[in-house]
Amino acid sequence: MRLARIAHPDGVAFASLDGDVDGGSATVHEIAEHPFGTPNHTGRSWPYDEVRLLAPILPTKIIAVGKNYAEHAAELDSEVPETPVIFMKPNTSVTGPGAPIKLPASSTRVDFEGELAVVIGQPIRNVPASKAPAAIRGYTIANDVTARDQQRADGQWTRAKGYDSFCPLGPWIETDADPADLEIRTDVDGEIKQDSHTAKMVHTVPELVQFVSHVMTLLPGDVILTGTPEGVGPITEGQSVSITVGGIGTLTNPVQAA
Amino acid sequence: MRLARIAHPDGVAFASLDGDVDGGSATVHEIAEHPFGTPNHTGRSWPYDEVRLLAPILPTKIIAVGKNYAEHAAELDSEVPETPVIFMKPNTSVTGPGAPIKLPASSTRVDFEGELAVVIGQPIRNVPASKAPAAIRGYTIANDVTARDQQRADGQWTRAKGYDSFCPLGPWIETDADPADLEIRTDVDGEIKQDSHTAKMVHTVPELVQFVSHVMTLLPGDVILTGTPEGVGPITEGQSVSITVGGIGTLTNPVQAA
Repeated sequence: MRLARIAHPDGVAFASLDGDVDGGSATVHEIAEHPFGTPNHTGRSWPYDEVRLLAPILPTKIIAVGKNYAEHAAELDSEVPETPVIFMKPNTSVTGPGAPIKLPASSTRVDFEGELAVVIGQPIRNVPASKAPAAIRGYTIANDVTARDQQRADGQWTRAKGYDSFCPLGPWIETDADPADLEIRTDVDGEIKQDSHTAKMVHTVPELVQFVSHVMTLLPGDVILTGTPEGVGPITEGQSVSITVGGIGTLTNPVQAA
Repeated sequence: MRLARIAHPDGVAFASLDGDVDGGSATVHEIAEHPFGTPNHTGRSWPYDEVRLLAPILPTKIIAVGKNYAEHAAELDSEVPETPVIFMKPNTSVTGPGAPIKLPASSTRVDFEGELAVVIGQPIRNVPASKAPAAIRGYTIANDVTARDQQRADGQWTRAKGYDSFCPLGPWIETDADPADLEIRTDVDGEIKQDSHTAKMVHTVPELVQFVSHVMTLLPGDVILTGTPEGVGPITEGQSVSITVGGIGTLTNPVQAA
């Protein structure tokens, strides 16, 4: 099932999505309240092209994982850590599909980083990897936008990765996917920049959920970004960056000056 | 004015606090809804000793500043950065006055870090330092509890500083204080460990609000931890750690095994 958050003619709502988006025959079905557990539909629906997709979830927190693909660690002249290295992005950095990534004037180099994003489905703490799949609501796509110059200068990554609009999420949450078996690709203006597979993650999704949940309580809607593969590079004003994860969809955002 | 969040005989509410807490004659006055702007009181009140203080705010995000006192940077064998180094603590790490700090089994060294905490009062973005004071609701006290071994091992500080209970906040928000003129002291079991003054901050509170608000939008209730002075050290099971900031109060938490 695809779970989206939409701006429809009368307001904003969660919704499920069916049909063929690319073929123009898709429909969104409004969900009452929230998309966790078994969603209750209100009975209202709209053709897909009459609504606008928003970030599919507004998380209370976003935990991201550094250097979780060996070849990306190598391109940063870094080694793969034995223990996952986690950091946070503020939830004010979240933006939706189609919304602009805004380049701050303070940075001379802003990079895309295509990633698989895990959306947590229930409150969890200290869960073993074996029980992680049951705690996951689904998967979406994230762009872990990074001011690379500030990342290198600061040591801590919060500023470099924390600007408003630096966490595009979407286009929707796919509830049925095998997170270890997904192609992941990033295009900038149609040119392929990242082309990898989630099977290459150093720490698997269940291992990451176990690790993070042994540090902090995770709440429904919280998002874990699972790291980016090799091929990261800069984006500049006027470009468009698209991240495609097989079985989920494509997240596209234009790039603007702030 | 002192703004608190309380568990009272009928539930949980924000409240203002007046009278002499230490003298036993203080009273809490329930606030309807939230403590921003001009609070509306419900008319209900209780003697101070009939309520329990909770963390005075549940922030959407907590931004913390590293190495903002020169002598603390020195004790970490580090230099004071020209630009503030910011990091985040998850809001699930917040706990209230009197609530236990829980030592995770995965760490062999957990430290206290006494800090002045700034509570933001309105949505802000790109504010200059001159306009920061008007955007601040008040000041409280934070303990930026840190698993020092994991901080050194990870490079990124999120895990080391992100455990549940690693951000005691309280006892209340003092709306009238000069953040550049406050004594700050930390005691462990009555022994003074940190004894400094907020005038020694490298970057002042208005400068920090300016800096952070140029990265990310800050929302009412968001908290900025302003860094810890020298004297950090370990806490162990059974100890009690108290942080006193002149003009605000004292935040005390016992230490337990998780």
